[in-house]
Amino acid sequence: MKWLIEDVAYLDGVHNTFVERGYMVVKDAIIEDLGAGDSPSYDESYKRISGKNRLLLPGFINTHGHAAMSLLRGYADDLPLHEWLNDVIWPAEELLTADDIEIGTQLAMLEMIETGTTTFTDMYASMDRVAEAVIASGMRAVLGRGIIGLDDPSLDKLKETEAFIRTYEGAGDGRIKTTIAPHAPYTCPPDYLTHVINLAEKVSVPLQIHIAETSKEVADSLSMYNATPVESLYTSGLFQFKVIGAHCVHLTDHDMDLLAQHDVHVAHNPGSNLKLGSGIAPLTKLLQRGIVVGLGTDGAASNNKLDLYEELRLVALLHKGVEQDATAIDAFTALRLATSEGAKALFLESGLGTLTKGAPADFQMIDSSGPRYYPRHNLLSHVVYSSHAGDVTDVFVAGKPLMRNREFLTIDQEKVCYEVGRIVQKFPRYQRVNV
Amino acid sequence: MKWLIEDVAYLDGVHNTFVERGYMVVKDAIIEDLGAGDSPSYDESYKRISGKNRLLLPGFINTHGHAAMSLLRGYADDLPLHEWLNDVIWPAEELLTADDIEIGTQLAMLEMIETGTTTFTDMYASMDRVAEAVIASGMRAVLGRGIIGLDDPSLDKLKETEAFIRTYEGAGDGRIKTTIAPHAPYTCPPDYLTHVINLAEKVSVPLQIHIAETSKEVADSLSMYNATPVESLYTSGLFQFKVIGAHCVHLTDHDMDLLAQHDVHVAHNPGSNLKLGSGIAPLTKLLQRGIVVGLGTDGAASNNKLDLYEELRLVALLHKGVEQDATAIDAFTALRLATSEGAKALFLESGLGTLTKGAPADFQMIDSSGPRYYPRHNLLSHVVYSSHAGDVTDVFVAGKPLMRNREFLTIDQEKVCYEVGRIVQKFPRYQRVNV
Repeated sequence: MKWLIEDVAYLDGVHNTFVERGYMVVKDAIIEDLGAGDSPSYDESYKRISGKNRLLLPGFINTHGHAAMSLLRGYADDLPLHEWLNDVIWPAEELLTADDIEIGTQLAMLEMIETGTTTFTDMYASMDRVAEAVIASGMRAVLGRGIIGLDDPSLDKLKETEAFIRTYEGAGDGRIKTTIAPHAPYTCPPDYLTHVINLAEKVSVPLQIHIAETSKEVADSLSMYNATPVESLYTSGLFQFKVIGAHCVHLTDHDMDLLAQHDVHVAHNPGSNLKLGSGIAPLTKLLQRGIVVGLGTDGAASNNKLDLYEELRLVALLHKGVEQDATAIDAFTALRLATSEGAKALFLESGLGTLTKGAPADFQMIDSSGPRYYPRHNLLSHVVYSSHAGDVTDVFVAGKPLMRNREFLTIDQEKVCYEVGRIVQKFPRYQRVNV
Repeated sequence: MKWLIEDVAYLDGVHNTFVERGYMVVKDAIIEDLGAGDSPSYDESYKRISGKNRLLLPGFINTHGHAAMSLLRGYADDLPLHEWLNDVIWPAEELLTADDIEIGTQLAMLEMIETGTTTFTDMYASMDRVAEAVIASGMRAVLGRGIIGLDDPSLDKLKETEAFIRTYEGAGDGRIKTTIAPHAPYTCPPDYLTHVINLAEKVSVPLQIHIAETSKEVADSLSMYNATPVESLYTSGLFQFKVIGAHCVHLTDHDMDLLAQHDVHVAHNPGSNLKLGSGIAPLTKLLQRGIVVGLGTDGAASNNKLDLYEELRLVALLHKGVEQDATAIDAFTALRLATSEGAKALFLESGLGTLTKGAPADFQMIDSSGPRYYPRHNLLSHVVYSSHAGDVTDVFVAGKPLMRNREFLTIDQEKVCYEVGRIVQKFPRYQRVNV
């Protein structure tokens, strides 16, 4: 497909500023050209889109999540973490079939598309079904079969992971990337990690793992191994591979040095870390060390959205307040975390997450006609601080439209929401908190 | 006007739970009836509204702001507070005329209506023009002429305040409430406050004042008066009146005891406090002491939105993370801060901020058909954690529609946005940060 978007304000990926009136040309899966002012003429095979009252941005990159947990959105909130996990989430997850996970993933993708996300990361079960749903949806995704090593004495999940990687790496015209996904140091102890490392040596894909999400995790690690989770992973040899560490909330200076030295990338999930009471990651210190950080939502059971507009604004506000420094994480830095740095954090191809010539044509348009976009002092500031995801009108991945004028084109919303209602009837009714 | 909203899920103000299918009847400015199931029959003078796929909620109450500062949205961000105020905000504000302030207030009201707010609080200049704009808009507001006592040797601003109160208290069929609005202890020193108190004794309206917004304010107060800002205001005698204290970020236990003992109400502005690097107010401690707290946005120059959906979600997340306690500020508490507790914080009439029989008919409807509202585990959770302001479709105040199906009915958006563009041309171009 070929597209010519005209009369649009776009975020230029080279100069990192909004061009207030310009054009972008898409050919097949790639940005063929973009520039200020009127476009050169193109033949009729290029379908024209008016960008009047629209801002054109790269699609957002969600660097951490568990898509099918959308089935547990609002199932239980405001509970202590261990009660929430042990009494509510895990028993409900036990009931999920592969069919359910496919539907839950579709529900999550509807929400992510609706909120301007074009690439997401998943760590969950039934990953072949997830991959098929992603391929059909047109989204881009980084997928890994989540592994609790404590439950895997015969290494079946590692075998499943290897088969998944061999089948799906590069599938969907390159939109699917695979990972090895050991859940966390506390669920994948050092002896299990040696098997993970054996697999990592055979396949050349990145690893994703939760690291130092809670202070309890750190305390337990210190007590068992006399090492922090980061130190323990370093000692295991994991950091010789490409690693995406999710959360990284509770870190020592030595931990951060290790992450920087070994180019471990971090998926920062400010909303989920707040909601679960986990804490607030030391983002400015991570960035000062040159560590690559992307933004993530985590699953919808602990957020309860998959909306990077929310995380974008939150990341730009939260660290200013915590550090009592209004210059911390400025608007531009925040927007990069949701776009180009997110792509880097996931070890994806150069150019993804930017609007530049030759980059993958993954982009969104937002309606800037409402009062929150006035006055026009600074469009970049408005996107970060004044927008919300309801402004998103159009989302394209690899040049293909997934949503046009707020209408989903690749997933049947009505069918998915109906199926979701059917699935959740089997969950035990959890006593609602305060209602 | 009379309305019958049918087939709607509504937040019952007596039982504080969602009734999943019911009706609400509005007669003139009041909620005449509401209940579960089908409505009794009403004659044709009641206009019927289908509430299918809608959630019906009280309108939100914004307890602190400076509406016309919407003209400075995005003018400068991510700067140290004193540079931001002295070099950017105050010089620009010097250029604002009364006409400009009226337009800026209209821009702010467009945004507040669009995001489900029905009552707002304002502290600014040209308050008579603001009041007229509010009356015309149909909104409800608590207004006060902001007073920098240091600039008011002849007490002109207090005289202006008194005239404003005598003219506008109860105007707009009771939708306008007035206040005395000394800006802050550091701009209204003790000798000036004696004049404020003289006025407070003559007129029986509440006061609104910024208190302990930054650690610098507290340090300066300790250095000048050997007392915290709260202690200093207490000593001045201000707390014998009804007081709405905005921010209250940096408080000692003794400060909080004083606020509780004297029933000082607090306007909590989590987004603004984060963005300006001011810090994080001790909300759970305030609530534990029984202090009445409402939510506020502050002005759009320091937020940069006037969107209580954003603050609602933020207040429910932020304190969990800071306290590392997932049970802090549960969803129901957060929603009350944005509604009924907000009304109490502003000393407004009983019932406002709730859907109850006999309460003022100030309400909003939101579209719950999108993926973020599935599964239907808990509608209250979805409103707090999963919604965004783009879901708001309809807003009524005192039984009168201000927005129907996302269309503004009382303010001309196109004209206001055009005028805003014209006004801001006179601002000096501030060097944009990072773009």
